[in-house]
Amino acid sequence: MRRKRVSGKARGPEAVKRPVLPGALRTAVVGCGIFGKYHVQAYAEYPRSELVLICDLNEKLARSLGRKFGCDFTTKSADVAGRADVQAVSISTPDFAHTNVALQMIRAGKHLLIEKPLATTSREAERIVEAARQAGVRVMVDFHNRFSAPFVAAKAEIDAGNLGTVVSGFARLSNKAEVPLKWLSWAGKSGPQWFLLPHVVDLVRWLTGGEAQEVFAIGTKGVLKAKGVDAYDTVQALVRFEHGSIEFDTSWILPEGWPSNIDFRVELIGTRGTLAVDATHQLLQVAGRALRYPFTTGSLDVHGETAGFFHLPIRHFVDCLLDDRPFACTGEDGLASTRIIEAMERSIKIGKPVGF
Amino acid sequence: MRRKRVSGKARGPEAVKRPVLPGALRTAVVGCGIFGKYHVQAYAEYPRSELVLICDLNEKLARSLGRKFGCDFTTKSADVAGRADVQAVSISTPDFAHTNVALQMIRAGKHLLIEKPLATTSREAERIVEAARQAGVRVMVDFHNRFSAPFVAAKAEIDAGNLGTVVSGFARLSNKAEVPLKWLSWAGKSGPQWFLLPHVVDLVRWLTGGEAQEVFAIGTKGVLKAKGVDAYDTVQALVRFEHGSIEFDTSWILPEGWPSNIDFRVELIGTRGTLAVDATHQLLQVAGRALRYPFTTGSLDVHGETAGFFHLPIRHFVDCLLDDRPFACTGEDGLASTRIIEAMERSIKIGKPVGF
Amino acid sequence: MRRKRVSGKARGPEAVKRPVLPGALRTAVVGCGIFGKYHVQAYAEYPRSELVLICDLNEKLARSLGRKFGCDFTTKSADVAGRADVQAVSISTPDFAHTNVALQMIRAGKHLLIEKPLATTSREAERIVEAARQAGVRVMVDFHNRFSAPFVAAKAEIDAGNLGTVVSGFARLSNKAEVPLKWLSWAGKSGPQWFLLPHVVDLVRWLTGGEAQEVFAIGTKGVLKAKGVDAYDTVQALVRFEHGSIEFDTSWILPEGWPSNIDFRVELIGTRGTLAVDATHQLLQVAGRALRYPFTTGSLDVHGETAGFFHLPIRHFVDCLLDDRPFACTGEDGLASTRIIEAMERSIKIGKPVGF
Amino acid sequence: MRRKRVSGKARGPEAVKRPVLPGALRTAVVGCGIFGKYHVQAYAEYPRSELVLICDLNEKLARSLGRKFGCDFTTKSADVAGRADVQAVSISTPDFAHTNVALQMIRAGKHLLIEKPLATTSREAERIVEAARQAGVRVMVDFHNRFSAPFVAAKAEIDAGNLGTVVSGFARLSNKAEVPLKWLSWAGKSGPQWFLLPHVVDLVRWLTGGEAQEVFAIGTKGVLKAKGVDAYDTVQALVRFEHGSIEFDTSWILPEGWPSNIDFRVELIGTRGTLAVDATHQLLQVAGRALRYPFTTGSLDVHGETAGFFHLPIRHFVDCLLDDRPFACTGEDGLASTRIIEAMERSIKIGKPVGF
Repeated sequence: MRRKRVSGKARGPEAVKRPVLPGALRTAVVGCGIFGKYHVQAYAEYPRSELVLICDLNEKLARSLGRKFGCDFTTKSADVAGRADVQAVSISTPDFAHTNVALQMIRAGKHLLIEKPLATTSREAERIVEAARQAGVRVMVDFHNRFSAPFVAAKAEIDAGNLGTVVSGFARLSNKAEVPLKWLSWAGKSGPQWFLLPHVVDLVRWLTGGEAQEVFAIGTKGVLKAKGVDAYDTVQALVRFEHGSIEFDTSWILPEGWPSNIDFRVELIGTRGTLAVDATHQLLQVAGRALRYPFTTGSLDVHGETAGFFHLPIRHFVDCLLDDRPFACTGEDGLASTRIIEAMERSIKIGKPVGF
Repeated sequence: MRRKRVSGKARGPEAVKRPVLPGALRTAVVGCGIFGKYHVQAYAEYPRSELVLICDLNEKLARSLGRKFGCDFTTKSADVAGRADVQAVSISTPDFAHTNVALQMIRAGKHLLIEKPLATTSREAERIVEAARQAGVRVMVDFHNRFSAPFVAAKAEIDAGNLGTVVSGFARLSNKAEVPLKWLSWAGKSGPQWFLLPHVVDLVRWLTGGEAQEVFAIGTKGVLKAKGVDAYDTVQALVRFEHGSIEFDTSWILPEGWPSNIDFRVELIGTRGTLAVDATHQLLQVAGRALRYPFTTGSLDVHGETAGFFHLPIRHFVDCLLDDRPFACTGEDGLASTRIIEAMERSIKIGKPVGF
Repeated sequence: MRRKRVSGKARGPEAVKRPVLPGALRTAVVGCGIFGKYHVQAYAEYPRSELVLICDLNEKLARSLGRKFGCDFTTKSADVAGRADVQAVSISTPDFAHTNVALQMIRAGKHLLIEKPLATTSREAERIVEAARQAGVRVMVDFHNRFSAPFVAAKAEIDAGNLGTVVSGFARLSNKAEVPLKWLSWAGKSGPQWFLLPHVVDLVRWLTGGEAQEVFAIGTKGVLKAKGVDAYDTVQALVRFEHGSIEFDTSWILPEGWPSNIDFRVELIGTRGTLAVDATHQLLQVAGRALRYPFTTGSLDVHGETAGFFHLPIRHFVDCLLDDRPFACTGEDGLASTRIIEAMERSIKIGKPVGF
Repeated sequence: MRRKRVSGKARGPEAVKRPVLPGALRTAVVGCGIFGKYHVQAYAEYPRSELVLICDLNEKLARSLGRKFGCDFTTKSADVAGRADVQAVSISTPDFAHTNVALQMIRAGKHLLIEKPLATTSREAERIVEAARQAGVRVMVDFHNRFSAPFVAAKAEIDAGNLGTVVSGFARLSNKAEVPLKWLSWAGKSGPQWFLLPHVVDLVRWLTGGEAQEVFAIGTKGVLKAKGVDAYDTVQALVRFEHGSIEFDTSWILPEGWPSNIDFRVELIGTRGTLAVDATHQLLQVAGRALRYPFTTGSLDVHGETAGFFHLPIRHFVDCLLDDRPFACTGEDGLASTRIIEAMERSIKIGKPVGF
């Protein structure tokens, strides 16, 4: 059954339209769920951007965000592609649902900021990158951890030579089981390898400057499957890079008592030193009926202004388009990560290492 | 001997003057040392501010910053007071040297953002607050930790009632000995009680919403004195607040091997829960010849943009003046902290509790 | 009403009497609650000790432990005093109930290992110490943390001069509210100052080798009182020692979600270095429905043998008596800690510092 | 050139021979280096053991330990095999030098406690296990971490069902580079895979109760090789177990500034919960010119008595022989670990997974 298209100009009385700089980039967002909301908010608040239009299949959500941020809304991505005044679009639909929207926008000449993973097959990721190249459209992938303070500082340490050559490492990003079981309606079409690993795979590529050569991975299923979600509980991979090896680790079954929604660590060993980022504990611990580590550094209202690194790559996208600067993380970076994770999936299936 | 006044228009070829929004606040900075530089940079980069003039006794420093950020410079604060086009001024001179400059600026009708501590005696702090009140000038004190993510999140937890009433707490901010011995030329005129405790005294007041009633403190001297700096090595105070008690703790003698320049913790116990902010480890650890916890959240170049909470209160100051909003931390807050620390000094001297 | 005396020889079939060395010390235990059980077990298992008799007001408990460890039992301490073959006695009755039993045993010529605190008034503590001196009876106080690995190692660091002179410190031992509310029937006759602070007061005296000169303290009540236990929720004290100052901190109201029964830290700043013992996290973290830090180092069955530092001071007591060596923690140490805590209580009441 | 045999009865005046229980086990130690000394001390101090003889190629060391602990000494293991009164022998020679001594002792009918790894090839390990079986000699492998408090507590958690089935895990044990470069003369004949991984491989087998099915590993060389030690800098392995997968990680190149000699972690994810042992920070942190985490739980003088888990398996070996109880870790456990590590070495060489 075809979904009825709903759109409108919903600027409600509560919308506080911020002043916009002359020459601001005209932006839109497709997919306004958990992370899409940050794109909506960032475009609405950043003076170099004018948020024109938002799109979500959930009409109620689209309407309410449109009201809140004073922009048009629609339930159909074609409306976004069709709006001539939109110059750049964020795509923050579910992991597996980036490609068609991306190609639609590329055909319409929109520059793209796409949530990670770029796509969940390398074939799709390649199509996006290639289509954009041919259309002269610029694509950035929202690897927002490249904008998170400890990783930025870590990169500076490595660039300063403090680690020497990175020869070994461990990178983990996991979630509590409530993420696939309660937050995501589409968990069974993704998995921790697509929802979580792109972050750490990209971080390792970026921090070490090396490319993967071979992947061996093992995945387990059972806990989530028993609850109706056919996704891996855990995925572990040992990846050979040019100078050494990195262990990746993800799970979607952290227990209820885990104090954060994430377990997030990247540890690198170099010929001259080591570094460790542990982003699970974010400087704050609260104990009441349970112990919690609130995630403090992502997005936060600080005396009326929005702070946090979730917003930085979105502003960066705007700046780079307006100032004609290169993106910090490109479609090619997204493709590289997708290839590595796809190789993990294949290695799990065939039980053998997969090379590139 | 009178210091020769030096000033100039030093916009060098390297100065990249950013675009400024219409109606931007015209700002100046007096005192461009360690922290003053952040004010200079924040005003220069924020589109709602136009950095007009900077002032530092060190001519070379003033000239070089003027060139870098494309603004005028001077070695005399009177030049700042005399510039009719300057609307607002940051004062980031040494701890003990705020009052005269502040009064000079107030007489000239400039709004003020003053680094903590507002002043090192309550008499001086009162004079500033009173003079500003009479002159209709607005004063904000730069308690920047009120803009730091874990403390902002902590405040939200308390405001949500998750701790109940705070009845007890521990708050520490200490430095490695190299701060008084190498960084500060004027350490002997301040002390950890003035350089460090204002941060945590203010945080406790802000987070708990309570006022101090009585102070008992002990200070020790010896290590720094033996090296020619007549300042307390350590100060500890037990302070009675309306609903409970808080232990404050500071030292300026953390050893060379301490992995950060700071040891920074605030821990609160309430009738319903507890919270702990530990800002010593900032998510990143690096080991080479020594172990280090880089301070990642203060100020950081993120792909060409400046991020970090050091800049937030400076932008907040600009916003609140332009938008006629109340400051998150006022001159009165600065006065309250100065009174508490002054009471600590007095308690140390007389060996008895000091009430208010 | 007089409680009926119950005693017996209850060696049940399950009792596995271990082999005892010739010349073993004949021991008894009065008070077999939470901590008394460790004394019973330690005497029963240590080959240099023969556990003769145990005593507890709870007949069922006494009988069952007697059966388990193959020794006589009684509900009356007079029976212990009257047993000529008992040479040494552990007293592990509630905090406030040490003195009468201790004096009774001293009159009977028994050497004593008394749980901390020695007594809850300095008058009582002095009577015990003086009576023992006159009777030629030896008294050890079970400050078991002097036998805990990190504190033993900390002491070695200080003795090696690695800290220089300790000028400042922070010492905390707190409990979850379930300890006073569920574990202890007599919490209202004690308080965190007597149940917990003796540990850290003694540790500070032992580690730094200094004596307290003056005490200023604040206590709060409310949470426990509302639940029928008239004890302090929190006690904080700033104590002047010869070379510096130490902040003590205790509370009995840690929330349900706190991952351990304790929050236990001792941090010292010296003229040459610092040290920190954090015994809250004991190397193990378990997450299920909640996050827990199991207390791993106290008492543990290791492949059939009992390990853990709880047992070390009890064996030490036996060894020192048999080998005529000095105790690591004496009645005088117990008296000193009791005096400091009594001064805290007095300071809370009069609102002024209390000297010695 | 044949080394001259040196032996003697060196009980010096300083030797304090402890009292020994009737029926004590008569013990000897071959290899008195870093870890052998703990065997010597444990046998000398435990009343159920009589230390008869020690053996080390280093005559001076053997003589001095003989004097200190009041036992005979020799430089030839044949002397140990030849002593009829020795019932049980610890073998703590270098990693690669266990087999010949073990077979020699087995032929002489001595029960054996062999340091991990049992041997550095499965062929040798099988020979030891088989020879012992045929000779009726009992073999225990000194996997001492099975006696370390957090791991014992972890095992109890798992046995209680708190984790459900373990499906995933991460296990790391690494050393600072000074271990291969300064502590060990024979590092080039071993490697982190033999010196360190046996600990964590055995812990994973023991904790999870599962057996490895397939191994994929990558090793890197360079840092140590450049300094004349031909050993792996790092080894990482992804191992398939029956119910899931475990990542192993070791390196011998932790930098000078690493605060401990080790980085030691075991983290397990189960279907119902998770656990993490972090044994790097051992409750104590000391900062002076550098930051250090002293290893506090291994072996420690506690007021004249030796405590620490290093000694527990040695006493356990004595107890199990005297009481005819099964060992907590057998020769078969040693063989299983050796097979897994051998498979890692093979996988590194052939670049493919290796099954069993």
